[in-house]
Amino acid sequence: MLQRTAESTLALSGQRFHVTYRLVGDVREAEARAREISIEQTVEFPESLIHSPEIREHIIGRLESIQVVDAAHCDVTISYAVETSGFELTQLLNVIFGNTSLQPNVRVVNVALPDALLQALHGPRFGQAGLRALLGVPKRPLLCTAIKPMGLSPKALAELTYALALGGVDIIKDDHGLADQPFARFRERVERCAEAVARANQQTGYRCVYAPNVSANGEQTLENARFAKQAGAGALLIAPGLVSFGLMAQIAADDTIGLPILGHPAFLGGFVAHPSGGIAHSVLFGLFMRLAGADATIFPNYGGRFAFSREACESIAHAARAPLGALKPIFPTPAGGMTLARVPEMRSVYGDDVILLIGGGLHSAGPDLLSNCRRFREMAESELVHPASA
Amino acid sequence: MLQRTAESTLALSGQRFHVTYRLVGDVREAEARAREISIEQTVEFPESLIHSPEIREHIIGRLESIQVVDAAHCDVTISYAVETSGFELTQLLNVIFGNTSLQPNVRVVNVALPDALLQALHGPRFGQAGLRALLGVPKRPLLCTAIKPMGLSPKALAELTYALALGGVDIIKDDHGLADQPFARFRERVERCAEAVARANQQTGYRCVYAPNVSANGEQTLENARFAKQAGAGALLIAPGLVSFGLMAQIAADDTIGLPILGHPAFLGGFVAHPSGGIAHSVLFGLFMRLAGADATIFPNYGGRFAFSREACESIAHAARAPLGALKPIFPTPAGGMTLARVPEMRSVYGDDVILLIGGGLHSAGPDLLSNCRRFREMAESELVHPASA
Repeated sequence: MLQRTAESTLALSGQRFHVTYRLVGDVREAEARAREISIEQTVEFPESLIHSPEIREHIIGRLESIQVVDAAHCDVTISYAVETSGFELTQLLNVIFGNTSLQPNVRVVNVALPDALLQALHGPRFGQAGLRALLGVPKRPLLCTAIKPMGLSPKALAELTYALALGGVDIIKDDHGLADQPFARFRERVERCAEAVARANQQTGYRCVYAPNVSANGEQTLENARFAKQAGAGALLIAPGLVSFGLMAQIAADDTIGLPILGHPAFLGGFVAHPSGGIAHSVLFGLFMRLAGADATIFPNYGGRFAFSREACESIAHAARAPLGALKPIFPTPAGGMTLARVPEMRSVYGDDVILLIGGGLHSAGPDLLSNCRRFREMAESELVHPASA
Repeated sequence: MLQRTAESTLALSGQRFHVTYRLVGDVREAEARAREISIEQTVEFPESLIHSPEIREHIIGRLESIQVVDAAHCDVTISYAVETSGFELTQLLNVIFGNTSLQPNVRVVNVALPDALLQALHGPRFGQAGLRALLGVPKRPLLCTAIKPMGLSPKALAELTYALALGGVDIIKDDHGLADQPFARFRERVERCAEAVARANQQTGYRCVYAPNVSANGEQTLENARFAKQAGAGALLIAPGLVSFGLMAQIAADDTIGLPILGHPAFLGGFVAHPSGGIAHSVLFGLFMRLAGADATIFPNYGGRFAFSREACESIAHAARAPLGALKPIFPTPAGGMTLARVPEMRSVYGDDVILLIGGGLHSAGPDLLSNCRRFREMAESELVHPASA
C-alpha cells in the first residue's frame, strides 16, 4: 500500500492493476520501450517537466518486471494506479492500450485487475449458471444457431426460427449481419421471431430463446435492446467492436433490460490478426468480453472458416471461465464454419460448459432441417466417450 | 442499375458501394479469397443452400475486379448493395470488415460510397470552413494543444488552460487520458477549464475553445457531451475506438449538442499496426472519422513518438479533404511528440488547412509557457518560404 504523505493531494488507494505487454527486442530495448509505454499510457508528458513527485511516482506506470520470452521477445509488466481508470471500463481500456495500440510490435498478453476495480465493473449478469437456469439446461452443452441468410424477409426468418426452435436448439440468434435493412426491418423481425420461438416452446415445452442483433449507432443500440426485451426476445447479440465494450457493459448492467448477452467478435479482428501486435485472444475475447458483461463469448473456432489456432481458442475458453473476483464465468462459444461432425471434438476440447454454435452447417447436414436440429441435440445430450478435458 | 423483375421481393435500388481489399496471394488465390469474403460479409451461408436468385445475385457481394499489386499482393474490389448497410454507419462498417477483420492477410485499402449512402450518413457538422468561422481564423493553420499531465487537479488544469488561451492557442483539448478520475472529476474540470478559456478570451479578444474528452461508457458519453455544451465547452474530444464510430456520429448529428468534434485515434491501433492486415490509414483515420462526424482527425505524425510513415500520414490528410459527396472536408491533425521546430515542415507537408497539435513540446520549448504559445502562433501566422504543397 502507498504510504500517504502530508503533501498527498491525489488520495490514491495504493491499489494497482497490472498489464503485461509482449515487446519485440532484447531486455535493454524492452526496458526502454516499457518506460515509454508507462508514460504514453498515463501522463503523455516529459517526465522532467512534471513537478509533482506523486504524479511521477504513482500516476506514471510503474515497471514491475521484465521477462525474456525468447530470442526476439520480452514480456514487460507495468502497473497503473487503479484510480487512473476512473473505475470505468472505457477508460480502463484506454489506460491499458489506448495510444500504445498505435505502435507496432507491442501486444497486450495479460491484464490482472484487483478487486477494487473488478467490483466496479460488474461483468456478466447471468454467467454460466444463470444462463443454464434460464434455459433449463443444467449440464449438457448449450445449442445455438443463427438465422440467415441476409436478404430473407422477417416472415421467412420467423419461419426458420420456428423450425429451429421446434428442433430443440436452445438459443437462436440473428446472424450478426441482420441489422435494420429495408428488406428486413429490425422491429418486425424481432416481433415475428420472438413470437415464433414462444409458439414453438408451447409445443415442445423447451425454453428456447431468441437473441436479436441489437448493434446499431450509439443510443439506437440501447433502444433496440429495450424494444427486444419488450417484444419477448430472451437474449441479445451485441458486437462490442462495432458498438464499444462500454455500451455493452451498460446494457448488461441495465435492470430494465436484464437479458443475457452473446458477445460477437465482428470488427475486433484488427487486434488479433497479427501475432506481434494487438491484444492476446484470451484478453480480448475472454477477459474484455467478460468485463463488458457478455454471458457468452463467440469466437472463430480453429479448423473452421477462420485462422485462429487451437491454442488461442483454448486460451479464450480458459479466460472465460477462470476465477475473476466475484465476476461470473461465461460460456466460450466456438463458431465459424462448424458442423455436426465437429460436436464430439468440441465437447472433448472445451468440455460441456460450452455453447455449440452451428449456423450453415445445420442446414447442410441433411435435407430435413428439423431432423438435423434433433441430431444436434442428441449429440449434445449423449455421453462423450472421451471425458471433458476442460 | 439493377433491372427489377416481377419476382423481386427485396426492392433493391441497384446502387452499390465498393470495398477494395488487399490480399496476400496470386490472382487465383485472390479470386478464391474474394468469393469467400463476398459471402462472409453478407449471407454467411453456403451459396448452394440459398434458393432466392435475388439474394444470390444481389445480396452476396459481387467481385468487380482483381488487380495485381506486386508479386505477393492483389487488390480485389467487391461491391455490396447499399441496402445491406441499413443506411447506417455501424452496419456499414460491419459489411465492410466485420468478420473479415478476424482473418489474417486482408486489408481494407479503399471504400467508395454512392450518394445514396453518403446522404444518409451526414458526416461532420462544421468541417474546415465551419470550424474556421467559429474560431475566427480564416486562413492560417489552427493551433491546438492538450492539458496534462494526468494527476493534476481541475484547478491546476484550469490554470494551465488559462495560460494556454492567453498565449493564443485556438483549441485547448483535454489529454485523452483525462476521464472522470477521483483526482480530477469530469464535471469540475470541464466547468473550470471552460470558465478559464472564457476569461482569457475576454482579455485577448480571441475565440479560443476548450475541448473536453467526453469518451466514457455508452450513454455516459452523450451525457458528458451535453454537460460540456451547457458548461461552455466549445468543442469535444471523442475517441471512436473506445466509444464507437456510431456513437460519435450520433453526437455529431445531435442539434442539442452542436459542437465541433476532434476525433482521437486511441484504441484504434490494432487496425493499422501491421501493414498486411487491418484497415488503411486513409480509410480509418480519413474516411471513417469523417463519416462519423469528426471535424478534425488527430493522428500520430511521422517522425514523432509513433511509427506512421510520411506516406500514410499524407494519405490521411488527403482522405480528410478529398471530395466526398456533400460531406464537408475536415482538418488533418498530425500530433504525437510534435515540437515548435516541426511547424514549418508540417505546414509545408500538409498545407495550411491543418490543425497543428503540440502538447508536451509547447512546455519544453522554453521556460515561459506564455511566450512559447506566442511563438507557436507567430510561426503559424508567418508566411511560409515553401508554399503549401497540399
